[in-house]
Amino acid sequence: MTSKPMSVLITGANRGLGLEMVKQMLETQRPLSLLFACCRDPEGPKAEGLQALAKEHPDIIKMICLDATDRSTIKKAAHQVGSMVGKSGLNLIINNAAMAIHSPFFESTPEEMHKCFDTNAVGPMVVIQEFISLLRAAAEDFGKPGMSCRKAAVINISTIFSSNEITKESYKMFTVLPYRTSKAALNMISVCASVELQKYGILCTMLHPGWVRTDMGGSEGEIDVHESVEGMLRVMNSLTEKHSGALLNWKGETVPW
Amino acid sequence: MTSKPMSVLITGANRGLGLEMVKQMLETQRPLSLLFACCRDPEGPKAEGLQALAKEHPDIIKMICLDATDRSTIKKAAHQVGSMVGKSGLNLIINNAAMAIHSPFFESTPEEMHKCFDTNAVGPMVVIQEFISLLRAAAEDFGKPGMSCRKAAVINISTIFSSNEITKESYKMFTVLPYRTSKAALNMISVCASVELQKYGILCTMLHPGWVRTDMGGSEGEIDVHESVEGMLRVMNSLTEKHSGALLNWKGETVPW
Repeated sequence: MTSKPMSVLITGANRGLGLEMVKQMLETQRPLSLLFACCRDPEGPKAEGLQALAKEHPDIIKMICLDATDRSTIKKAAHQVGSMVGKSGLNLIINNAAMAIHSPFFESTPEEMHKCFDTNAVGPMVVIQEFISLLRAAAEDFGKPGMSCRKAAVINISTIFSSNEITKESYKMFTVLPYRTSKAALNMISVCASVELQKYGILCTMLHPGWVRTDMGGSEGEIDVHESVEGMLRVMNSLTEKHSGALLNWKGETVPW
Repeated sequence: MTSKPMSVLITGANRGLGLEMVKQMLETQRPLSLLFACCRDPEGPKAEGLQALAKEHPDIIKMICLDATDRSTIKKAAHQVGSMVGKSGLNLIINNAAMAIHSPFFESTPEEMHKCFDTNAVGPMVVIQEFISLLRAAAEDFGKPGMSCRKAAVINISTIFSSNEITKESYKMFTVLPYRTSKAALNMISVCASVELQKYGILCTMLHPGWVRTDMGGSEGEIDVHESVEGMLRVMNSLTEKHSGALLNWKGETVPW
């Protein structure tokens, strides 16, 4: 018995972890009907890698303009995606788009705090709000009880640096107040979302990708993007209703709050 | 041997928990040299209770204009306070000013999220930034090792509703996404602050006041303001360096993140 083809949407898909997710999903997550690769400027020079991939797989990859800080683009993206997925809905959203501002406590400004909060926390909230009908359609169309990423799910990419528990040890290593705060906010938003979404059979789980060698993580990261994404996809494939509202790392281990 | 007189600053001191803190501090926290009772409009009709108290205790209570969302008022307040406390510095700041917006997940707007975040999370950050030299002066003037509220401390009023751990059970009871998110953000800001402040011997601890019958908590709260503040003052008096970066309730019990 083959699985039902699934549709996936990834934000911030033009580089780093997002782009690697697109690549590995094409290779391993079959059957895959549609992969909506979202970024702020799909036609711009920062999306060249994604454009090349999309050219190779025109039936699967659909490039979509989506800016997590601009509801009008999210609304428009939901409309575009809705017209393509039809009654099957959208199975999986990966809120991956994020920004980091590297300011320690005494140098962080309200403007930096709001900017990070807007992209990393409010953005995923609005994405869920605007795509809820497509997720619900997918959950209904799936026709089986339980929860999974193949049925209907939201994965919010968080970080171990959102963990209050380990901040005392890790703060000095990575003194990024606006970033940490925005991701702690994202965790609360995700847990609240998980309660709302479980009514419809939709999973909502947070993942910590590891400390990855990307533009954001820097060159000293512990793992490369390939290992991180490979791990996260494995974890996503294993998620069930038990993981609703949980924060796990790329190995599937629970991260303390 | 009598204790050294202490100076205290409370934000949102014109009503609810803040006003009760001013009252009980006058009764029990002696010797108290100066109590800076801050609110947005010290001369307005919403500060009448505080005005009456200030008239009774003109040598101790100093009413100060401070709007947690407006750095210029915080800067000016720090200047006023600094000129009154002199080289003794300011011993204790209680970041109590807060707002609640009662919106469930699917009805919360970015504007509501930012508004709550600004008052409840960014405000306390800016207060610490602007008052740091007065806190450091108090820590140095105290002249003893260790940490305590009588030496130099910041108490950030948080809430059990900032706890990811209990959100799954409590979300439906209190579906206030912007409020929960802002307080989760405040927790991370406080933990980061605690790491920065401990270098100077300054304590930073979060307190959950209980579910209190106030304008914010509503009439169904479990305890009244008197019991909440009595408990919180008792906890504050017992805090040591062990509680740097901790979240405790009004009984002194640790709240899970």
